[in-house]
Amino acid sequence: MHEGTFEFGHADGGVTAPAGFLAAGVSAGLKRSGKRDVCVLAAAAPCAAAGVFTTSATAAPPVIVSREHLSGGMLRAVVVNAGNANACTGELGMAHARAMADAAAAALGCAAGEIAVCSTGVIGVPLPLERVTSGITAAIEALDSGNDDDAAEAIMTTDTFSKQLAVTVTAGGRTFTVGGMAKGSGMIQPNMATMLAFITTDAPLAPNACDTILRSAVGRSFNRITVDSDTSTNDTCVLMASGAEGGAVLESGSAAYEAVAAAITEVATALAQMVVRDGEGATKFVTITVRGAASEHDAELAAFAIANSPLMKCALFGEDANWGRVAMALGKSGAHIDPTAFEIVFAGIVMCMNGTAIGFDEEEAARALSEPEVEILVDLHVGDGEATVWTCDLSYDYVRINGDYRS
Amino acid sequence: MHEGTFEFGHADGGVTAPAGFLAAGVSAGLKRSGKRDVCVLAAAAPCAAAGVFTTSATAAPPVIVSREHLSGGMLRAVVVNAGNANACTGELGMAHARAMADAAAAALGCAAGEIAVCSTGVIGVPLPLERVTSGITAAIEALDSGNDDDAAEAIMTTDTFSKQLAVTVTAGGRTFTVGGMAKGSGMIQPNMATMLAFITTDAPLAPNACDTILRSAVGRSFNRITVDSDTSTNDTCVLMASGAEGGAVLESGSAAYEAVAAAITEVATALAQMVVRDGEGATKFVTITVRGAASEHDAELAAFAIANSPLMKCALFGEDANWGRVAMALGKSGAHIDPTAFEIVFAGIVMCMNGTAIGFDEEEAARALSEPEVEILVDLHVGDGEATVWTCDLSYDYVRINGDYRS
Repeated sequence: MHEGTFEFGHADGGVTAPAGFLAAGVSAGLKRSGKRDVCVLAAAAPCAAAGVFTTSATAAPPVIVSREHLSGGMLRAVVVNAGNANACTGELGMAHARAMADAAAAALGCAAGEIAVCSTGVIGVPLPLERVTSGITAAIEALDSGNDDDAAEAIMTTDTFSKQLAVTVTAGGRTFTVGGMAKGSGMIQPNMATMLAFITTDAPLAPNACDTILRSAVGRSFNRITVDSDTSTNDTCVLMASGAEGGAVLESGSAAYEAVAAAITEVATALAQMVVRDGEGATKFVTITVRGAASEHDAELAAFAIANSPLMKCALFGEDANWGRVAMALGKSGAHIDPTAFEIVFAGIVMCMNGTAIGFDEEEAARALSEPEVEILVDLHVGDGEATVWTCDLSYDYVRINGDYRS
Repeated sequence: MHEGTFEFGHADGGVTAPAGFLAAGVSAGLKRSGKRDVCVLAAAAPCAAAGVFTTSATAAPPVIVSREHLSGGMLRAVVVNAGNANACTGELGMAHARAMADAAAAALGCAAGEIAVCSTGVIGVPLPLERVTSGITAAIEALDSGNDDDAAEAIMTTDTFSKQLAVTVTAGGRTFTVGGMAKGSGMIQPNMATMLAFITTDAPLAPNACDTILRSAVGRSFNRITVDSDTSTNDTCVLMASGAEGGAVLESGSAAYEAVAAAITEVATALAQMVVRDGEGATKFVTITVRGAASEHDAELAAFAIANSPLMKCALFGEDANWGRVAMALGKSGAHIDPTAFEIVFAGIVMCMNGTAIGFDEEEAARALSEPEVEILVDLHVGDGEATVWTCDLSYDYVRINGDYRS
């Protein structure tokens, strides 16, 4: 595929596809199922890195520790455990998060400040620390450039499939690789971050370039998805740039810089969409585009109001062309709406013009809505703000999964 | 019961319990089931009245017409149809809403401006006007002070029971009666108004007193409930004061005025709670109190974040003491939270102190959560703001009802 003056290509694998990265995923006994639950993603040497984190006021200890360790813009590794979020665990939780970094630093022979720490799973239960640190040591012994599948599996909780991909991008005669993995299925409206996502590249990026590129990529990817409007206490997205491509550090504004930024956004968007496709109980992948809004912020407000409406989500599950619920969601969204101007197009079929019903073929609509992917397009006809948000429907299975998760 | 210097008592019936009011509910063929679907509530003579309406930017034509007609503070009657919301119906919908007022005015021999109009049901379908106006004429012929059951039934849509009550209040040697009815079950987070609610009193109140009392009552009742966070295009609450009690008009600040205001708030709160108890698919009635907040607004933000969290609602359906989801909701609420201070009490059992898990008896918690009524108390320990919000759980039946409503 082509994008501006550069060219994307496919690469196999995930976070270890770019040169300079090793990973491992092991079973440390945190998941009752016995599945892999501790992951380490390490660079061969300390590398430029950036992170974005949950905006939750009840951010978990690992988020607080990772924010601190990433303030210098360099990382050697990220350690992750699944099955326990180490959230609402107070001073003990802080000590546990630091102990995870210490264990990784000791095994890797680096400073604890070069380790980012992530936890995901149940909130409010103290971490079984010994199992986690033993897992970290075992994972570091198993580090390999061919372990991306194991790593992506070890960060899963209610996910039904592991989420990873890698792309190459060529610009200015140089070829870079970007890889990524993510987990997430419920408690998904990341709000300035994501559940857990890790993106790697062999591009030589300065720490502040990592930060700028990551924030921009997350704003258009993980911050544009919602499964259930709930925001996790542990959301973290980390970018690591090994520089193993070998060329000079990329200057902001150069063709190669823009190409790598686009590739990172591409990987972030693909991972974000995988999270929605694996939304708890989801039977539909829904793309909601609002255009003609007074501003991009208004377009986001309107798109999220539609995406998070339980009534809209149930109608999608029921394959019901209930565009009136889109009109309802617009009305409560807080976006500027001209009630005589808006247009609603559901699965390619215009259902409402000038804020008013127009006739459409119900059979054709039923057919279109029976597809696994549905697009909702709203034109507010009051400006030129536009935003696209991805979400899923609300099914019996969402209720089943979340009525019986902790226990 | 006693409340300050006045005394509440029970009265039979609903909107026609106060002297000076007549009602009727008839079947006009709008509901496929053949059930009653047109309601008229009339005063014997034009009386002081006030209304509050949806804040939706896509407010329906009947809301626009009723707002206009209530601007003078006087009403003779309210006409309501169920089964069709007359929303997103454009100019034709405006003409239909005015035609409903005209039909009622002609049959009652009053001005159309003395008629409030309400519609509830599916959005975006033109009203079958002839059936509705025939129904209004038939209902006006049937007006009687003993028809409150029929009237309350005729405004129902997905409601599983009709919602009405009446109370008396005695103060300063005078006894007043306040009656009310409401409908609503889904698309419930009224936001400054309610689904449809009608409150009557025989107290002699000036129009501006009606307005002041109604806004205050709604702020603590209908604006403190949520079923699914969705806000209807048609929410309307109307108060009518016949003055048939016969005494002098009540002065603001007098004991009798305060007593009537308290009784109106009592009726509004009881009706609001009935709407939540009848929440679509609800199996639990949940009272969420947040105290110790930085302000009353913060307490409302936090309580609504808990009440509207799909994860929290599913945990309540699953009878799972998942207080971690309360902590998650606090984190995303936007309220000021000290993560080392908050306390969570679930069904009377303290589960979290100083923002951290404390041990509790899981069996005792499971027993408490199996009750049909559950209380969640959060103390943020950062101020003295307090708010109580009422909600219900999210069950398979909510998905079933809303996956198959329009069709």
